[in-house]
Formats: sequence, structure tokens, C-alpha cells
Amino acid sequence: MQIPKGLQPMVPSTADALAAERSKAQFSVADMHRFIVDEDTRTKTAKVEKVLASEPELFNVRREYFMSRKEKLDHALQIGTRLIELMREGKLASDEIVIADNILDINGPYGLHRAMFIPTLQNQATPEQQELFLKPALNYEILGCYAQTEIGHGSNVQGLETTCTYIPETDEFEVHTPNIRACKWWVGSLGITSTHAMVMAQLIVNGKNFGPNPVVVPIRSTKDHTPLSGVTVGDIGPKFGFNTMDNGFLMLDHVRVPRINLMQRYINVSREGKVSRPANVDPKVAYGTMVFVRTQIVRGMSQTLAKATTIALRYTSVRRQFAGKSDKPLAKNVESPVLDYGMVQYRLIPLLAQNYAMFATSQAFALHYEECMREMNNGNFGPLKELHATACGLKRWTSDVAIHGIDTCRHVCGGHGFSQFSGLNEFFGNAYPNIIWEGDNYVLSQQTSRFLVTQVRHLRKGKPVADNQTTQYLRKHLVDGRLAEVPAPAFVGRSIESLAADPEAQLDLLSYRAAVMASELADQMDEHGQSWNRSLVAMQRLCDAHSDYIVASYFRRHLATLPASSPLLPVLNKIAALLFLYVLEQHSSDLFRLPGRAAFTNAQVNRIEELLATIIEEVREQAIPLVDAFGLSDLRLNSALGRSDGKVYEDYLKWAMEDPLNSDDTGKAIRKEWFEKYYKPVMHGAEASKKAAKL
Amino acid sequence: MQIPKGLQPMVPSTADALAAERSKAQFSVADMHRFIVDEDTRTKTAKVEKVLASEPELFNVRREYFMSRKEKLDHALQIGTRLIELMREGKLASDEIVIADNILDINGPYGLHRAMFIPTLQNQATPEQQELFLKPALNYEILGCYAQTEIGHGSNVQGLETTCTYIPETDEFEVHTPNIRACKWWVGSLGITSTHAMVMAQLIVNGKNFGPNPVVVPIRSTKDHTPLSGVTVGDIGPKFGFNTMDNGFLMLDHVRVPRINLMQRYINVSREGKVSRPANVDPKVAYGTMVFVRTQIVRGMSQTLAKATTIALRYTSVRRQFAGKSDKPLAKNVESPVLDYGMVQYRLIPLLAQNYAMFATSQAFALHYEECMREMNNGNFGPLKELHATACGLKRWTSDVAIHGIDTCRHVCGGHGFSQFSGLNEFFGNAYPNIIWEGDNYVLSQQTSRFLVTQVRHLRKGKPVADNQTTQYLRKHLVDGRLAEVPAPAFVGRSIESLAADPEAQLDLLSYRAAVMASELADQMDEHGQSWNRSLVAMQRLCDAHSDYIVASYFRRHLATLPASSPLLPVLNKIAALLFLYVLEQHSSDLFRLPGRAAFTNAQVNRIEELLATIIEEVREQAIPLVDAFGLSDLRLNSALGRSDGKVYEDYLKWAMEDPLNSDDTGKAIRKEWFEKYYKPVMHGAEASKKAAKL
Repeated sequence: MQIPKGLQPMVPSTADALAAERSKAQFSVADMHRFIVDEDTRTKTAKVEKVLASEPELFNVRREYFMSRKEKLDHALQIGTRLIELMREGKLASDEIVIADNILDINGPYGLHRAMFIPTLQNQATPEQQELFLKPALNYEILGCYAQTEIGHGSNVQGLETTCTYIPETDEFEVHTPNIRACKWWVGSLGITSTHAMVMAQLIVNGKNFGPNPVVVPIRSTKDHTPLSGVTVGDIGPKFGFNTMDNGFLMLDHVRVPRINLMQRYINVSREGKVSRPANVDPKVAYGTMVFVRTQIVRGMSQTLAKATTIALRYTSVRRQFAGKSDKPLAKNVESPVLDYGMVQYRLIPLLAQNYAMFATSQAFALHYEECMREMNNGNFGPLKELHATACGLKRWTSDVAIHGIDTCRHVCGGHGFSQFSGLNEFFGNAYPNIIWEGDNYVLSQQTSRFLVTQVRHLRKGKPVADNQTTQYLRKHLVDGRLAEVPAPAFVGRSIESLAADPEAQLDLLSYRAAVMASELADQMDEHGQSWNRSLVAMQRLCDAHSDYIVASYFRRHLATLPASSPLLPVLNKIAALLFLYVLEQHSSDLFRLPGRAAFTNAQVNRIEELLATIIEEVREQAIPLVDAFGLSDLRLNSALGRSDGKVYEDYLKWAMEDPLNSDDTGKAIRKEWFEKYYKPVMHGAEASKKAAKL
Repeated sequence: MQIPKGLQPMVPSTADALAAERSKAQFSVADMHRFIVDEDTRTKTAKVEKVLASEPELFNVRREYFMSRKEKLDHALQIGTRLIELMREGKLASDEIVIADNILDINGPYGLHRAMFIPTLQNQATPEQQELFLKPALNYEILGCYAQTEIGHGSNVQGLETTCTYIPETDEFEVHTPNIRACKWWVGSLGITSTHAMVMAQLIVNGKNFGPNPVVVPIRSTKDHTPLSGVTVGDIGPKFGFNTMDNGFLMLDHVRVPRINLMQRYINVSREGKVSRPANVDPKVAYGTMVFVRTQIVRGMSQTLAKATTIALRYTSVRRQFAGKSDKPLAKNVESPVLDYGMVQYRLIPLLAQNYAMFATSQAFALHYEECMREMNNGNFGPLKELHATACGLKRWTSDVAIHGIDTCRHVCGGHGFSQFSGLNEFFGNAYPNIIWEGDNYVLSQQTSRFLVTQVRHLRKGKPVADNQTTQYLRKHLVDGRLAEVPAPAFVGRSIESLAADPEAQLDLLSYRAAVMASELADQMDEHGQSWNRSLVAMQRLCDAHSDYIVASYFRRHLATLPASSPLLPVLNKIAALLFLYVLEQHSSDLFRLPGRAAFTNAQVNRIEELLATIIEEVREQAIPLVDAFGLSDLRLNSALGRSDGKVYEDYLKWAMEDPLNSDDTGKAIRKEWFEKYYKPVMHGAEASKKAAKL
């Protein structure tokens, strides 16, 4: 199938439109890229993209959108197997494979072996166990997964029902699935791939339950991959996304494993059935791992959202619709780019600002995390609680913004956003679980809010609290943990313009909002008897208010690493001011509800909306250079709409023509078959029966 | 593959939990069903489900989640072809086929032939043309589509670039695609199926452009289905949803058709090239069709959302997580249904209330629509503008609530919501375009708001305005189109409790909010020089405020059809009060911003939140009977989580076991192949090379 010859060129061309946007850049895109993306990511991404480019046939994700589930798994296995080979050939490091997965947006069947099986062995196995399991795992001689979630148990890990019972007679554990609800479910890399499962099970010794503990259970033969005796295992079926991953289920029917298979770094079961816990290991270290995974999500969400904003902003700046309706009408009958319309800007530009804040925040937060880890490695676990609370809030904030942001980007692309070739749909499905896993975002907010309310309670009771950025703002804005008229917060009485130009005042206002909400929630719970359950809605809001402050504060911290003369700062300061005003505008109800003189008036909120609209228009002018600075390759975007050369419609049409249904060989055969089977009886059947009736 | 024998039963069982919820019903579910779902839908649905049940093998949509794009199309064609046969056998009427499509959630390739090709012929063809095209179309002897959208033109129909040029020499039209941007795109039933396309093209006669007009172009042979000369046609490829539909593209290279092929009811081109428009046809009738399509979307969205709320509420009432954390802790160690948690209730119960409002509104609005149509058929086009403005607002309101509501339902089901077997994902993709097509929701809001602002302007200038529910509230709350302190609106000074109990007061407040926003927007645009483009954000909000009022008003109108003694009323009144409070709570910023004495205080908004939480808890108790009353069959839900018998986990596991990847025949072969191709080299390759290194 070919594009007919003799078509006229499109005037104005989409490629020229994108080039014109680029020419407006008021800063160096390369410098901005170096500022916004951390060095490690930049270097490794460049290296990996070079490796992928050297085998374009294999690493061709353009075909992905046409594939069935089976073909996707096959393709992911092919790619995953080759990546392991490349590692063995010394061309890629293990963590670079993860970057390759991200670039290709393919979460393949070896993923959880690397992400969960190996780290659990590294953290929870004794040296003897590491020799036994970790070494072959690192060599991919065994393939593992981490089987925690059960079909009936997700958030409540303590409620898991799979059992691991010590059998002193044979010096073994018997791992068992007592009922359907205890069937392991969702476990990545389990459906087809794993030979070994790290099974979280209730450890029972001498009839006593010691809670969930991980135990290694061989489930498939390493010789021929068939399931072992007593093991019922399979793929859980198709999902909204992640269809390149073999999430699996597992039921164990009284399966016996040697005693050595129970991870024994934090707990030990002796030959005689004595259970002990080593004295020299603080279990809070494991807690740190959970925080680490969340910091990784925060970082990943920047890249995730960047893909969507890059596609949507490039496309809306070349897509034209209606002449003379924007505020900048072009020559007669030349339609305006849809990005010139106020509503499109309002949906995309604040999202772009959030995206910049996410990149900056993830870098500044990573530094804070490393600091805390150093403290903890020195035995000071003081920073852990605040770190954990903030990480929960940030995980929620960034994944909520990213996932709903992708949805906004799709919708703003109109009908074409609905095509797989937009690059926004398969990708949306793959990114979606980030709001669910590692703590569902709604559940997670309770962690952050509980911490905040607890600090307020301590302040009220005069109990000591650790010194950190959270308690600092609570101390600043509350008097003995309570709201007071004096001192009035510093932002009171200032114009919106002056607030938008003053980072300190912005942080003052954002932290004041959070402090007020924390204090009011403490009042409700402690003085008006509001139950935990009735407080959950307020907890969501408090968590978000805290995170709004934290994001703004880390954003500013990262900006502060630039010299005051940096040519990047004018646009970055504008973006930070935009984000601040957007938070206020989105939560104007909170501003009206601030106590006493701090409460905002109608006139102030109107002014926020006006100033926000103005700054949105200004940042819109730099939108394409700003997304270019994310540095995402066309391979990664995998999108007709977001192509860096702006040749949107040409590529979109070409891609459609590549659909197997349209091809001259197999496509023709399918269409012929359907004509004979369906269309012909429908069309000729009526005629035939009509003719028959006439005879 | 089989579930292992000897598993214990689950205690407490999910089936028992659902039965216990049902036993709490304080009203007759059957009566509620009759009230909430219109008679036509009920009767036809019952009839169609019976027909579908008689051929369970064919109409088995349970397999759908495993299918590739090609298999989906094949299945849809098989089903679609059989439905046409059933129609020919007299077992189904044509409109019942549409109901079958909805039940099965399969939008098959014959869909646009029925939904667009035939209606366009019915409305825009002359009797002679109807003989030529409509008759064979009704017999399915030709298969059609409606080719309007181009790859570069969606919302702006006037900007279409395909041309239809009269060639007097041969008495033909030449239909032509001048450039890639003019390539027809998204056209349903075009990709594989259609033999004829109703092409919207710029009509050019003697060098003069008469704007876009529809012309019938034969594109594929009815004999063997191959594309005709000059026609480049194909499928546009995979999409986020609607993959059972062959949306297509079409390029025409100077294709000639006879003059009779141009639809001539509203425009005529004579043999000599004279263009005329018949005098006795008012083009506003065509406008009415657009309104009709939107009323159909409003109606459809109720059913669409009902599927999601049924699944989510049933599942969350049997899914248990954590013991002792809800306000109603159960026996020790028995986990609470997640629907007992405040945050789950807050996300689902107002959605259920919105769903009830949608069912009721669509019925009351349909009556209003029919009234207006009667007027218009009598030549009175007075009601058209308000009807159109309200239909735009309701299309936006219902589809926004439904689509984002499905997303909420998926998320609230946690990880399992992400499985295709939840029934919420494929379905989400299929429902999603409703926020885009028939006027993108963001664009549509401008229609409603333009109408409102125009009415305000007329009132200000003393110009006459039509009498309808919109102008009634504008007149009531504004004095000569302007805000005034006197008379204060009736709700001022009343307690939240008394408002929640008084439908009239609720409508007063909701309409006052919309009137204030309309007046303020008129001020901004007319007195402060705010451009159209800068007003777009305010227009979204105004449109939604108007629709909030309209929905509440139609909801009340439908409730008023019940006798005052109806046992359905207590819960329905509670639902209406809940919806009212939810609107206030979601838009509390609007309440703070109301002018003068009408402005809400902190205390009032706090009270709204408290009362809302209380009523949510009350309605939660009736949630399962309330969704049962939607009357959706298990066939339609196609969900493990939403099953009417509550046997969630059993079915979920069984469904996964049915995955072709897990099967003992083909699945085993696939897995063996992958082991040889991928896993073996990975696992044994390392060992082999290590051993080799040792030698």
C-alpha cells in the first residue's frame, strides 16, 4: 500500500511549525537538559541508546502496537534474552538493562528477577544462602520472582494466609496454600518464567506464628521448565497494561523445602525448632529499602510524564484548528495551532511546570535521601520517620500528577490521542500501576498525615520532636502546636505579584496552609472525637498540601544550585512561580479557609487567576524548547504525534499503512477470508433471497 | 489446569457477604429498576438478552479479553453477521441490534452503516436517491460509512479540504484528496467493510465553493470487495479501545461519480451547473439531529457508568482488608469490607448518586427533547437554542462523570481493577471516546456558556429573550441581567440541614451559583475587555455550574413522577440530597465567592462536609440493592469482580486458568518453544560458558 503520487505539499507544514517554535528558545536546550536530568541518567541513557541503535531490527518497538499478548511476550523475551547476552558480552551493566526497559517501555519477564528476587537475597540471605541462591541468580542459572501478594491480600501484609510450617521430623518447611484467597497473585515473572519463587508466608514453628517471612521455593524444573510436584502455577491473564510481563499465580500443595530455604538474616530457625533473631541487625534497615523504592518511583515519574508532555506539546503546536479564534490570529484562513487556545494552554502548561518540578525535586530529594542513609548507617535512625512520611507523600504526588497528566495529554490530542500511534495509550496502561503499587496512593496519604498529626500532638503536649523540615514549619506557624493570631504569617498583606516573585514568601504560604490543615485535623480528631475513618478525606488533603510545600521547597533547592547569573534562571523562575500560582488556583477553597487575617479575599483569588493566565501564556512561548530539554529520543517516544521532526501526519499515515491488516500479502488474505465468510453472505444473501422471492 | 483439591473454604465467604448486603434493602429492587430505567430500554434489553442467551457459544464475550486485534475483528464480524441474520429471520429489530452491541460491548464493523450512513440517506437524500442508495443499504446489499473527519481536520468542519468538483463535460463530480492532511481518517466501518462512503467534501461548481456537502462514493467492489480505481483505503490501526471496529482512512485520486451521488435534499446542482437550495426545508432540522445524538449519549452514559459502579460496589463490599480499622470493626481478626472505609465510600457513593441522577435526568430530558421537537415540527424553532445549549452541557457533564467515574472504579478495585477480568479496562477504552466525539467536551462547554452570556447580554440591553428554564433562573437571580443585593436569594440564612431537606432551596442555590458566574463572565468580557480566548477556563466552569443545576432539576422532575407515598422516595431523596451536598463540597470555592450576604462561611462549608459524610454512610448501607436495581446482567458486566453471585476469587482464578497461555495443549507448546528459544540459552548458557571457562 502506498501514498498516492501527485499529492500537494501541506501548507503551512507541521515540520516548519515545530522549527519555528524551536527558534523562539531563550535559553540553551543542552544546558537545560544537563540541569534538569541528573548526570547518571544522562550518561547511561546515552550509552544504552547507542547499544539499542546498533541492533535496530531487534529493538524495533514500532511493531509493538500491532502485537497480540503472545507476540508481546515473545518480543519481550527476545529483547530480554538479548539484553542478558549484551551484559554477558560486557556491553551493558545490569542497571543499564533497566534503563533499556524504560526506553523501550517494555517490562519483560526477567524484570522481577532483577528488581525483587536478587535484592531480597542480597538483603535477607545469610552468606551461606547467598552462595546457594544469589550466585546462580546473578548468573541467571535460576530465574526468580517475589511472591507476596495473594488474591485476597494486598495492602495488609500481616493478613497473608500462605503458611510455612517447620517439620522437625525431616528438617524441612512445608509451604502451603490453605484456600483460594491465599493463592499468590500478580507476581511479576512468575506466570511463565520463574524457576524459583521467594514466597512470603506465615512462619509457623511448633504451632506458633512468627508472621510473614520469605522462603525460597523451587517451582519449575531448571532442566525442562515443567512445574514441580505440588505446584500449580500460571499466568494471570491479560491486563490493562504490562502485557509484556508474565504476572502469575501460584498455589502450593504441601510443598516441602529444606530448612536453609527460609531467609535467615533477620530470623533463624534451628534444627531443634528454636526461633531466634540476630541481635546485631536493626530491622529498620529494611524499612529504608521501602523508602528507596519510593524514591525510585518519584524519579521515574518525571521521565514518565515527560514522555506525555513532550508528545502533547509538540503535537498541539503543529496541529491547527480554526482560523481567527485565538488571541493571535494568523494570516487569513491560516488556522491557529491549538496550543494557542487558552484551554489547551491551561491543561498543558501547568503540567509542564509540574514536570519540571518533578525532575528538580527528584534530584534534590535523592540528595536528602542519601544524607539520611548516611545517618542511619551510623546508627542514627532519627531522620527515618520524616523521610518515610515525605517519601510517601511524594510518591503519591508525583504518580498522581504523572498518571492523570498522561490522561490529560491524551485527551488534549483529541481523536488522534486515542490512536495507539500517539504513543500515549499502551504507555498509559504500563504507567498506571504506579498509583497502586508500593502503597496505593489513597492508603499512602495516611502515612504522611499520621506523621504530621503526631508531630502536632507532640508539640501540643510539649514532647520533644526531631528537627527536620516538617517540624520546622510546624514550629514556625503554630504556637505550641496550635493556631494563633500572632505572629501573622509573613505572606499576609502582600500582593499576589510580590508573592509570585518571592520564593521565600511562596514557601511560607504553602507551609502555612499545610500547618493549618494539620492543626485542624488534630483538633477534629482529638477534641471533637472524629474517628480515624471519618478523617480519611481530610488526610488526603493534608498529605497533598504537605507535598505541595515539599515539592516547591525541593524545586527551589535545586534551582539554588545554579549561579545567580545563569541564563536558565529567568524561565525556571517563571515556571516555579507558575506552579505556585497553580497550586493556589487549584486549591483556592483552602485559601478562603485560612484563619483570621490570613484568609484570602475574592479580589486576591481573582488576581491569582489573572496572573496565572499571564504566566501560562509566557511559558507557552518556550514550551517546545522546554520539552526538548527533557532529551527524549524518538525511539522512546514511539509516537507519530510527538516526532522530533514534526512530520506528524506523514508518519501517522505511513504507520497505519504498515498495519498487518492492510498489507498486500497476509492482510489481503485475511480480508478475502472475511469477505467470503461475512460480507458476501450479508450483501449477496439479501439479494439472493430477494431474487428467490421474486421467482 | 485445575484448582488443587482439598482446599479449605474461604471464611467469611464473598458470596455470603454479598447476600448479606442484599438483605439490607429498604426498598423493592424490582420497583426501583422500573423507576430508574425507562420502559423501552427495559423491554428491549430483556428481549435481546434472551436471544443472546439462546446462542451462548457465539455470543460468548468472556473470550474477548484474550483476543488479538485480528481475532477481535473476526469475532465482531461473526457476531455482527449473525445479528443481521437474526434481523432477517425477524427475531431482532434493527434498533435492538444496537442494544445487543451495548450488552456485548462490541462495536462491530457494521455499526456506522446503521448509525451514520443510513440516517444520512434518510435525512439528506431525495426520494430518487433513496431508491438508489437507501433501499440497498437497508438490505445490506451495499455497506456504508460516513467519511467526514480528515487527518488534519476534526472540530473545524468548514476547514475540510477534500473537494467535490462538478465536471459539466461529463455530468459528474470529481472527488479528490488534495494533500495528506485531507486524508479521511477515523471513519468507522471504512477500514475493511464499506463498499460505499458518504464523503463530506467542499462542493465546487464553476470555481465557486459551496462548503462541505455529502456525496456518495463507491470505494470497494460489491462483487469481490477489492478497492476501486483511484481509491486508497485501509484500517487506521490499533486504538486505545474500539478495536472491534475497523476505523479507516481514505484517499481519493480524482475519482468520478455521477451527479446524482451528491445528497440533494438541501442543495441541488443542475445539469447546467446551477446551484440552488430548496425553499421549503429549514436547515435547522439538521441541527436537531445533532441535539438528538447528544441526548443519546446522555442516555448511554447512565448505562456505561452503571456497569462500573455495579462492579466496583459489589467488589468493594466483598473484598476485605485489615481488621479493626473501620468504624464498624467485626469479630477479632475478621477483616472489614473495604467499602466500610471512609475514603472508599467517598470515592464511590457520590458516584452512585451521580449515576442515579444520570438515569433520572436522561428520562426527564428525553421528555423535554420530545416536547421541543413537537414545537419545531410545528415550525416554532424558539426552544432550539436553549435545548442545544443544555444538551451540550449535559453531554459534557454525563460523559465526564462517566469516564472519570470508570477510572475511579478501576482504581478503587486496587490491583485487581487492573486485570482485564475486572471488566473495567477494555470497557474503559471503548467508552473513552465519548468525551471527544460529537463535540470534544472542552469545546462543547463554549456552546453552553456562549448561550448563557448571550442571554445575560440581552437582559442587560432589555432585548427580548425566549422563556425557558435557563432564562427563568437568570431573570430570577439577576436584576436587568446584573447582580444585585436585593432581593437576596431564598437560600440565604438557612442551615445546611434545612437546605439538604428542601429541593426547592437546592435548585435555588444551584441556579444562583450559575447566574452569578454567567453575570461575572459577561462583566469580564464586556466591561473588562477579557478576550474570548482568555475566557475559556471560566466557560468550562460556567458550563458545569449550569449543568449541575440542570441535572438536579431534571432529577427532581423525574422524582416528582412518583406518588408521595412511594417506598422508593426515602432513599431517592437521600441520594438527591447527597448529590446536592457533593456539588457544594466539590465547588466550595464557588460558595465562598458568592456575592454579598450569599457568600458562604467556613462554618457552613465545614457543616456541608460533615453532613455529606453522614449521608454517604447512610446511602452506603443501600449500595448493593441500589446497583442491583440497574439490572445489568452478568453477560453485560463480563467481570469476575462484579459477579452477581459474589463468587469473585473462584471465578477470577478460573478465568486466568482459561488463558490460552496456560492451556495444556497450545499453551504447553508455546511455553516449550520459549524455553528452547529463550530460557534455556539464558540459564544453561551461563553454566555452559562457566564450565567451559573452567576447562
